Amino acid sequence: MRSLDGMDDSIPRRPVPPTTVRRLSTYYRVLGTLQSNGQPSVSSETLASLTGFTAAQVRRDLAYFGSFGKRGVGYDVSSLQEQLAAILGIDRGWRIGLVGVGNLGRALMAYPGFNNQGFDVVAAFDSEGSVIGSTVNGQRVRPVGELEDAVHDERIDMVIVTVPAAAAQQVVDQAVAAGVRAILNFAPTQLRVPSQVQLSNVDLAVEVEYLSYSLAE
Amino acid sequence: MRSLDGMDDSIPRRPVPPTTVRRLSTYYRVLGTLQSNGQPSVSSETLASLTGFTAAQVRRDLAYFGSFGKRGVGYDVSSLQEQLAAILGIDRGWRIGLVGVGNLGRALMAYPGFNNQGFDVVAAFDSEGSVIGSTVNGQRVRPVGELEDAVHDERIDMVIVTVPAAAAQQVVDQAVAAGVRAILNFAPTQLRVPSQVQLSNVDLAVEVEYLSYSLAE
Repeated sequence: MRSLDGMDDSIPRRPVPPTTVRRLSTYYRVLGTLQSNGQPSVSSETLASLTGFTAAQVRRDLAYFGSFGKRGVGYDVSSLQEQLAAILGIDRGWRIGLVGVGNLGRALMAYPGFNNQGFDVVAAFDSEGSVIGSTVNGQRVRPVGELEDAVHDERIDMVIVTVPAAAAQQVVDQAVAAGVRAILNFAPTQLRVPSQVQLSNVDLAVEVEYLSYSLAE
Repeated sequence: MRSLDGMDDSIPRRPVPPTTVRRLSTYYRVLGTLQSNGQPSVSSETLASLTGFTAAQVRRDLAYFGSFGKRGVGYDVSSLQEQLAAILGIDRGWRIGLVGVGNLGRALMAYPGFNNQGFDVVAAFDSEGSVIGSTVNGQRVRPVGELEDAVHDERIDMVIVTVPAAAAQQVVDQAVAAGVRAILNFAPTQLRVPSQVQLSNVDLAVEVEYLSYSLAE
């Protein structure tokens, strides 16, 4: 269990819902904007209006991790931002391997939101002869057959899968066999992983469908 | 208000939480897989285990829209899939304009999850002279200055924004001025739209941060 300043580690924490963790990312992003605007503190009401959640939700989400704000003053922007970075593990410098250097893979390798937050793509892999050996965003693309060795040699913590759906399970099996504990899948297919491996799926169509629902209403 | 078979339109419906709508997308995707596997019916328990939600959640989400399952039999896979498509408006053939034909834009234009579900990218725009005029996924890329005219001429329902953060607000303002009611933003920045316009943001870093949280725990 992670220890934060002023928290008593002997008090067992309640399990944190995944949706709360995802909202922390959003708060963290907004705090970054506030900080670069030179704002020293922020209320839960303002955080709510900037993120589209409710003030009660903001307070409830943060309460899982301790007591951050001061009544009547609100939250100290830079201190809350630092603490959220620590909770999210953003301050640790994760090493990422990316498999599938197509358009989406290239977009993610160049995504400023990754590099700025300690997510370093340290190795990239593809199965296409025409892509292997080329340099993308400073990385020489390696054959996917080297994934397992690279996980050890490059101390890869996390694998991002941006291959076509039909190839995704095989890539995931290789990553799991090499001991990777966290996989982020963009391929539009359901993947199987052992229970000790954390798999997250990004479904790019969900938000388009949400807009479609809103338009259709 | 949308009318579904067997629903009484005179009964006012409860407001549907956005998270429920997003889970419908996931159920819809899983039902597609079940149908292509030839499975005629499915229980809420199976839907839950395939999506990672609880059976109670599945039943609660679907109950917003009517009563779909039969006790002891479960849900008819193809009928539920059709009804979810109708609820999500996926069966309507939305016309999409995409602004920003970089790697992410190209990935989305080629994304099978869009084209298969009635989301047609009918026009693509960029500000780069080297990209304008080139053909990407069957679309000739047009200068972004043509966006407003194209919204009318091509009857664009929805705009996807995949430009750099600094350029996003201007693109959104043009889309709004042209009468677009739904905008999907991938640029990592907060955008302002009038209240009658539905804006959804896709933050590609949220899921990486969720995995980071899991690893750090």
